[in-house]
Amino acid sequence: MLGSEPVGVGKEVGDGPRCFHICKLPGRALGTRVLRLSLVAVLLLLLVAGALTTLLPNNKDDKMLSWRREVKAQGQSALASFTLIMQTYNRSDLLLRLLNHYQAVPQLHKAIVVWNNVGEKPPEDLWNSLGPHPVPVIFKPQTTNRMRNRLQAFPELETQAVLMVDDDMLISAQDLAFAFSVWQQFPDQIVGFVPRKHVSTASGVYSYGGFELQTPGVGDGDQYSMVLIGASFFSSKYLELFQRQPAAVHALVDDTQNCDDIAMNFLIAKHTGKTSGVFVKPVNMGNLEKETSGGHSGMWHRAEHFLQRSYCVNKLVSVYGGMPLKYSNLMIAQFGFPYANHKSKL
Amino acid sequence: MLGSEPVGVGKEVGDGPRCFHICKLPGRALGTRVLRLSLVAVLLLLLVAGALTTLLPNNKDDKMLSWRREVKAQGQSALASFTLIMQTYNRSDLLLRLLNHYQAVPQLHKAIVVWNNVGEKPPEDLWNSLGPHPVPVIFKPQTTNRMRNRLQAFPELETQAVLMVDDDMLISAQDLAFAFSVWQQFPDQIVGFVPRKHVSTASGVYSYGGFELQTPGVGDGDQYSMVLIGASFFSSKYLELFQRQPAAVHALVDDTQNCDDIAMNFLIAKHTGKTSGVFVKPVNMGNLEKETSGGHSGMWHRAEHFLQRSYCVNKLVSVYGGMPLKYSNLMIAQFGFPYANHKSKL
Repeated sequence: MLGSEPVGVGKEVGDGPRCFHICKLPGRALGTRVLRLSLVAVLLLLLVAGALTTLLPNNKDDKMLSWRREVKAQGQSALASFTLIMQTYNRSDLLLRLLNHYQAVPQLHKAIVVWNNVGEKPPEDLWNSLGPHPVPVIFKPQTTNRMRNRLQAFPELETQAVLMVDDDMLISAQDLAFAFSVWQQFPDQIVGFVPRKHVSTASGVYSYGGFELQTPGVGDGDQYSMVLIGASFFSSKYLELFQRQPAAVHALVDDTQNCDDIAMNFLIAKHTGKTSGVFVKPVNMGNLEKETSGGHSGMWHRAEHFLQRSYCVNKLVSVYGGMPLKYSNLMIAQFGFPYANHKSKL
Repeated sequence: MLGSEPVGVGKEVGDGPRCFHICKLPGRALGTRVLRLSLVAVLLLLLVAGALTTLLPNNKDDKMLSWRREVKAQGQSALASFTLIMQTYNRSDLLLRLLNHYQAVPQLHKAIVVWNNVGEKPPEDLWNSLGPHPVPVIFKPQTTNRMRNRLQAFPELETQAVLMVDDDMLISAQDLAFAFSVWQQFPDQIVGFVPRKHVSTASGVYSYGGFELQTPGVGDGDQYSMVLIGASFFSSKYLELFQRQPAAVHALVDDTQNCDDIAMNFLIAKHTGKTSGVFVKPVNMGNLEKETSGGHSGMWHRAEHFLQRSYCVNKLVSVYGGMPLKYSNLMIAQFGFPYANHKSKL
């Protein structure tokens, strides 16, 4: 109620047709009250109108805009994006350079850095001081420097797909976009850029190698039976599956500080009954190992590295009671990238 | 009963311990009988022994040998081999040269030559006079010279897979072996060597083309939505499915003497809900068209050929009430053939 007296009480009206005081309110005092009332009425009307406009159907642009805002807030859907898992040891210069690259790759949901530099603080402050960043990057300091740290079922992982990359591999965004689309067509296999194989020998002992180990004179071309996880896409469910493997598998990986990828290929081949991986030919992928300033030179430089891998193959056959790996010779490339790559160069 | 008197009846034995006459048969007459009986007994034993040996388990070599004989007699199994269907018109020189090549391709079960030279005798006599041949080749003289003659559900076809090749295409055995192995992994799609595409235009009218029609500036690389059947593997069930298509489809192919392959891609995409074909990059495939002496120069030289194909795409969309073709950018190559082909040439 505005003013001190109620409106409409006909105290001072004379005889004649009765009407509301609002029509015949005499005097300046009442005129001010009318003004106030009018203003209030107008404001009320504006408020009501404003409230009503939110009920109106949005025009198309508004819809698009609000959808985009929603997407930004919630991130990309669990199926249409992937999470980078990058384990790192003593190569922070390479790590940060690579994060600058991978952070901008389309369809990346989040990056998880498995920080194996025990006792050393991860560069979170530096990272934050150089923000904003396109996606969240989570640094996970580890309590022991273990190769299989990267195969934990991280709670921060929200996507179906994992992109696992070694901390010295630079893979172009084109290669990643294509390989991710291939993974979406082969989601229960490792889709990656590095093929390897096991071979049987006359003695029954297995050995591990690459394309240099192509069996001469047998059939045409080569075969692969593993795809290394250090440059690949695979389903996040396999991290959980790895955790559930026999203790002997974990012990093997811990003892050798090697072979986590061979173990993953074994368990996936066994689980699916298919070849564990699908090889996608990279167009532009490079190793930056030589470019580290004083950083770690890479496990594969150890004298025993490759012998260990053959050792692991035989050990895993014994743990799994058989050889589950299967051969494939399918090499998948992106049609038309580079231009006219479908033409043979014979 | 041998001899005229039964053995064992003790007529002439004297007193003393009774024994069978066989012990004491006197005289030469009975001696001959014994000899005959012995011979008969021996023969019987030999027969029984002979019969028994067939029940013995065969040693491994014998098993392999008899299996190979069985296979030769019955041909290769329906899943592990394919049937060549080659339609020909006025290019017998190329045809015979190509048959000399394809007849020797491993895993070929049989060849069917669709003889479109109406009124002209197929070269069966010549073929037979130059035998023996590795596989049967059936010449099927046609009553009209129609492009879709090759899409009949031939009763001679015994395999799941069809290899359809134009009568001027020479595809290496390596390419065929690999593509067949890929088809076995994608049996409900056309697995072949020639990718093509349709494009949407702003007007909604479709157009047909190859990699030269890659949409500039949109995404990376190219896409294909069809694999031409004239150099491909596909399931023989699709021949029956083609026969069951609406009359409008058959009429279109007959009117244009073109587009049977586009029609096949439409029906397979519609049937599977997937991309109709999978492109395999050929290593050594060539067209011998220029090498024909006075033969037919090929339908694609007709002025209207390519415009017809765009026309067919639009017509088929109208027949099928929509565009069923799907895009793919997967190019499948044989790992390690040629050697080290997994390495990029950047």
